[in-house]
Amino acid sequence: MKATVYKGNKTFSVIEKEIEQPANGDVRIKVAYSGVCGTDVHIYHGMMDKRVAMPQTIGHEMSGVIDAVGEGVEDYKVGDKVVVRPLDDRKVKASDKGFNHICEELKFIGIDSPGSMQQYWNVPSFVLHKLKAETDLKLAALIEPLSVATHDVRRSGLVAGETAVVLGGGPIGLLVAMVAKDVGANVIISEVNEKRIAKAKSMGLHAVNPMKVDLVEYVKEQTDNRRADVVFEVAGVQPALDIMCEVAGIRGRILMVAIHGEKKPVDLFKFFWKELSLIGARVYEKEDYEKSIQLITENKLPFEDMITDVQPLTNIQQVFENIDNNPDGMKVLMDCQQ
Amino acid sequence: MKATVYKGNKTFSVIEKEIEQPANGDVRIKVAYSGVCGTDVHIYHGMMDKRVAMPQTIGHEMSGVIDAVGEGVEDYKVGDKVVVRPLDDRKVKASDKGFNHICEELKFIGIDSPGSMQQYWNVPSFVLHKLKAETDLKLAALIEPLSVATHDVRRSGLVAGETAVVLGGGPIGLLVAMVAKDVGANVIISEVNEKRIAKAKSMGLHAVNPMKVDLVEYVKEQTDNRRADVVFEVAGVQPALDIMCEVAGIRGRILMVAIHGEKKPVDLFKFFWKELSLIGARVYEKEDYEKSIQLITENKLPFEDMITDVQPLTNIQQVFENIDNNPDGMKVLMDCQQ
Ligand SMILES: NC(=O)c1ccc[n+]([C@@H]2O[C@H](COP(=O)([O-])OP(=O)(O)OC[C@H]3O[C@@H](n4cnc5c(N)ncnc54)[C@H](O)[C@@H]3O)[C@@H](O)[C@H]2O)c1
Ligand SMILES: NC(=O)c1ccc[n+]([C@@H]2O[C@H](COP(=O)([O-])OP(=O)(O)OC[C@H]3O[C@@H](n4cnc5c(N)ncnc54)[C@H](O)[C@@H]3O)[C@@H](O)[C@H]2O)c1
Ligand SMILES: [Zn+2]
Ligand SMILES: [Zn+2]
Repeated sequence: MKATVYKGNKTFSVIEKEIEQPANGDVRIKVAYSGVCGTDVHIYHGMMDKRVAMPQTIGHEMSGVIDAVGEGVEDYKVGDKVVVRPLDDRKVKASDKGFNHICEELKFIGIDSPGSMQQYWNVPSFVLHKLKAETDLKLAALIEPLSVATHDVRRSGLVAGETAVVLGGGPIGLLVAMVAKDVGANVIISEVNEKRIAKAKSMGLHAVNPMKVDLVEYVKEQTDNRRADVVFEVAGVQPALDIMCEVAGIRGRILMVAIHGEKKPVDLFKFFWKELSLIGARVYEKEDYEKSIQLITENKLPFEDMITDVQPLTNIQQVFENIDNNPDGMKVLMDCQQ
Repeated sequence: MKATVYKGNKTFSVIEKEIEQPANGDVRIKVAYSGVCGTDVHIYHGMMDKRVAMPQTIGHEMSGVIDAVGEGVEDYKVGDKVVVRPLDDRKVKASDKGFNHICEELKFIGIDSPGSMQQYWNVPSFVLHKLKAETDLKLAALIEPLSVATHDVRRSGLVAGETAVVLGGGPIGLLVAMVAKDVGANVIISEVNEKRIAKAKSMGLHAVNPMKVDLVEYVKEQTDNRRADVVFEVAGVQPALDIMCEVAGIRGRILMVAIHGEKKPVDLFKFFWKELSLIGARVYEKEDYEKSIQLITENKLPFEDMITDVQPLTNIQQVFENIDNNPDGMKVLMDCQQ
């Protein structure tokens, strides 16, 4: 079988290795597609070299078909289409209060242990979610990032008729916007990259450039001065932190999806004044995966437009180099059988 | 009648004026006690001279008895014991979404219009809450700040068995701690002023000094590593902002009660990582007043210990000067009939 490995220093190799039998409780997946995540690009840039045990196969946004089952696996059989929820929560403790998906000793599969950018992948069966026979495996590779979005929207409590502003129209921002719109909300994306604005519009989404329009005034006009009921911070930059407190209306809920590596100034007065809430959101829970699987299987949202490129697994080095050169693209999938 | 007026430049006067008949829809209250709030001290320090129309009577933490009712007032009669919820929300708009207590054009009575530091006070009847005949009028002057606490605790969703950490053991912090303990929570106050720590302890509260113990380790020990379920930020300083994200456990709720006049650095990574929530809380709603009236009337909590001094209204200048010289005192009441 072919596997890719990240070796540090912006370098991947494609290696040949033996197909392994699944251990007790594990399954072997014949990986169909594996999407490239912002985190994978971070790893490629060497930002996570302390955490990644090189040489290592990375990747976690995947779809595939069960190829072999280890002893003790009862709920899955060869031929089942599956996706992996890449959270290894085996070290969960009482002090995690049952929030296993963010437990203190959580291991993220594909970062802390081998990932999906290979032809065959052995994983414990507790990370699996079964797909329908008719689910498209290309679209199914979007289930992991889509579950970030279904988690964020669920945690926001967004309901039909509310207005949501999504700060940042990258892959996560667009998926959040799609899920929020599907809930029945009035959704406005704020994005500074004109190519990404055009992409969002081509997908039937409502996107504006805060460098060209006064976002707060724009949202006030759209909402009879109510401003946003929910704001999703998925840009990860200071201007988004500044505007999130302005664009949110009275009792607005701000979802902190972006990852801010250092302390940043926040207008806490506005939290007091308008009784805003800031709600942290990290990865997903089981029910978010189930919701995403339903959405992908129904395929009523413009998911296909999210996939801007599909490349053979063996092109991995070029794929990551291209992403660096073209920050406008949305989601690149690796075809893991080519 | 006697009234006090703030004239700017750290100066109050006591003046004689005519008792006025209440206008349509208003009542005249014979004010019993009026507590000195941190906001009143702010006004005295000249920090709110742009907002306060000098010379002006200030004060909003009061209790009293209805002395006359204007035309059209049906629910109140002469002799009723009352407190005022000093929120004038007559300019509420649809975009305030029904959150009248924080509506965009809210006027705060006692800041934006005349307050209670006088013998008789005319107010619209919609700001009144009726007390029981047996309610103690001295304790009743605590209902306004206590309602800040009942509002904060209600908004936190705190339940019995959870652990709450209260950052700051000033008047608001102690009231929050009392209400949180009454809910059945395990409450730990963090305070740097040793006299205030001693005060809290004398009231049967659990208080520690974060300059002397490692607060995060201390709370971990007390909670089997769960850390705090709820954190109340009522100190208003950067060290409290820093520690609030550390001391909160997974899915911890942080109540932003303190007023931060400028943007301050916040560890947003922790919000993502532990899925924390930051919940802004401002003043109170009707139901918070009702809860506070119940608590004060039952008088099972150490409310009397909160009142560290009672002074005649005519001593107002000296009262404010003393507060500046003695930051350890808790709540000073003005006896408005002396
Ligand atoms: N919470 C989680 O579990 C989770 C999971 C995945 C990703 N993330 C985080 O979500 C964020 C978004 O991920 P992504 O993959 O979509 O990233 P991305 O970098 O592709 O998207 C961010 C977008 O924000 C835009 N932007 C920059 N400045 C802006 C501004 N001032 N106003 C509006 N938009 C602006 C950029 O042009 C870009 O399109 C990242 O911070 C990522 O780390 C969090
Ligand atoms: N949200 C509202 O509607 C509302 C209403 C009233 C007051 N407030 C605000 O609540 C806050 C508290 O009010 P207060 O009257 O009790 O004020 P206060 O100044 O008397 O109390 C603050 C306390 O924090 C303590 N402190 C300082 N540094 C600390 C640290 N590092 N750790 C722990 N404690 C520390 C101080 O010693 C002091 O006792 C203020 O910011 C006030 O403006 C808000
Ligand atoms: Zn991902
Ligand atoms: Zn007050």
